[in-house]
Amino acid sequence: MSDEMKMVIVVDRSIKMGPGKMAAQVGHAAVSCALAAERYDKRNFDAWMAEGQQKVVVRVDTTKELLRTKMAADDLGLTNALIKDAGHTQLAPGTTTCLGIGPAKQSVLDQVTGDLKLL
Amino acid sequence: MSDEMKMVIVVDRSIKMGPGKMAAQVGHAAVSCALAAERYDKRNFDAWMAEGQQKVVVRVDTTKELLRTKMAADDLGLTNALIKDAGHTQLAPGTTTCLGIGPAKQSVLDQVTGDLKLL
Repeated sequence: MSDEMKMVIVVDRSIKMGPGKMAAQVGHAAVSCALAAERYDKRNFDAWMAEGQQKVVVRVDTTKELLRTKMAADDLGLTNALIKDAGHTQLAPGTTTCLGIGPAKQSVLDQVTGDLKLL
Repeated sequence: MSDEMKMVIVVDRSIKMGPGKMAAQVGHAAVSCALAAERYDKRNFDAWMAEGQQKVVVRVDTTKELLRTKMAADDLGLTNALIKDAGHTQLAPGTTTCLGIGPAKQSVLDQVTGDLKLL
């Protein structure tokens, strides 16, 4: 079985956002992880880019679950970025909306996000 | 009036995608533009990052309009990335899904996307 390079973005569905707002937050997470990996995890970054920068968007139903997922990513030493909204529109400033993890191998990401459903 | 740095992502709504798929495509556009700007348009990249990497997601209703928007961005010399889906899921390989433009000043982006509605 292939073990592809992916980035996973976990969206907190308990935060009410329109589809464009949500997509912008996912974009924020993806950019933050990509730039961090480019600097500090170049091998995974290069492999992920070479394989077409695949992304998977999944969901959790509570902020607690989002934060627990971040801790699990930290424990494995995975590049990750917790996104807080600036609060210009729709949300209160500092509201956490989503979490980017990776890029990393699918098999490693599965240890953290393998049980989460696609958004 | 302030002239903030933004990135605009234009989604082609004539392509049928679920919300997670769409968010992943927006993420792809955002990462592609950010990495391109980091290399080739460092001044705008740095200013955008310093201002919190703002993103706006807007929509067009036809692929023709998406491509016309890309041409307008090219004409102004704006960093941009037309995203084609790899076709692993949901869409046929090579389907264009969205277009990232910028980062650039809002006033410049408005010449290209100022008439487009928020997604």
